[in-house]
Amino acid sequence: MKALVLLGCPETPSQTPMAVYVFNKLTKMGYDTTIAANPAASKLVRVSDPEGFYNLNIVDLERLLGEINEGDYDLLVGFVHKDAAASFFVTFEQLLNTKSLALVFSRDADEVAEFVNMIEESGSNAKIVAVRAFHNPSPIKVKFDKAIKEFE
Amino acid sequence: MKALVLLGCPETPSQTPMAVYVFNKLTKMGYDTTIAANPAASKLVRVSDPEGFYNLNIVDLERLLGEINEGDYDLLVGFVHKDAAASFFVTFEQLLNTKSLALVFSRDADEVAEFVNMIEESGSNAKIVAVRAFHNPSPIKVKFDKAIKEFE
Repeated sequence: MKALVLLGCPETPSQTPMAVYVFNKLTKMGYDTTIAANPAASKLVRVSDPEGFYNLNIVDLERLLGEINEGDYDLLVGFVHKDAAASFFVTFEQLLNTKSLALVFSRDADEVAEFVNMIEESGSNAKIVAVRAFHNPSPIKVKFDKAIKEFE
Repeated sequence: MKALVLLGCPETPSQTPMAVYVFNKLTKMGYDTTIAANPAASKLVRVSDPEGFYNLNIVDLERLLGEINEGDYDLLVGFVHKDAAASFFVTFEQLLNTKSLALVFSRDADEVAEFVNMIEESGSNAKIVAVRAFHNPSPIKVKFDKAIKEFE
């Protein structure tokens, strides 16, 4: 089983810690897991595991988008905290056509609703977890833990 | 030898990855290292090491401030990216009266200059590393690596 974790722009302080957390969780669930991120988001994740204990497998988001095909991954998990990230998530979901989980978060409740709408209006079948959160990762972590159980 | 790493508010996405990086580096240098942070910043650091591979030792910043005495630590390293963080750094430095390194960063060059001034005007003897950075940790990492060599 293969899982793909999509990161958005690196502005939000919760994303990098949660990226390691999600990678580790999926790996323990038996998924061969890949993180796709832009260069700045990738650097943040790499710096946070200086000894490489987590064996993080990180690839370039844009390059992967050009190469990916249906069936390449069995699970897609996306961090959605910008409209660009919502667009990427929807695009990857359509290309992969596999079970998907969107982690939507923002410090602004209107943005949370907007990103959820963007995903739903694309005709997505993804499970969507949405929460107001910015620099406290706990709400995202709790909702992710609950949602991912449905994929076990 | 004991080292204390002070974290500021958790808004900046570079702080959490760099906190793990700095903790790991100081530990490898032989320091018994403690991270002091507010609750949100602490949570971010904990989530980023879900398996506890780094044996991060994290304490509450405010509580530590009330307990600390000169001689408790041999090295102070502080992340300064808000004026509150500059105040905390200066206060801890005066209480500990030990060798100190301030990592000053912001996406705004004027803020970088302002925080450096705040530290210098306190009569601090700290080594100050200052850099414009926000979501790319590399400039901070490179400057930290260079500065910490002087403490080896």
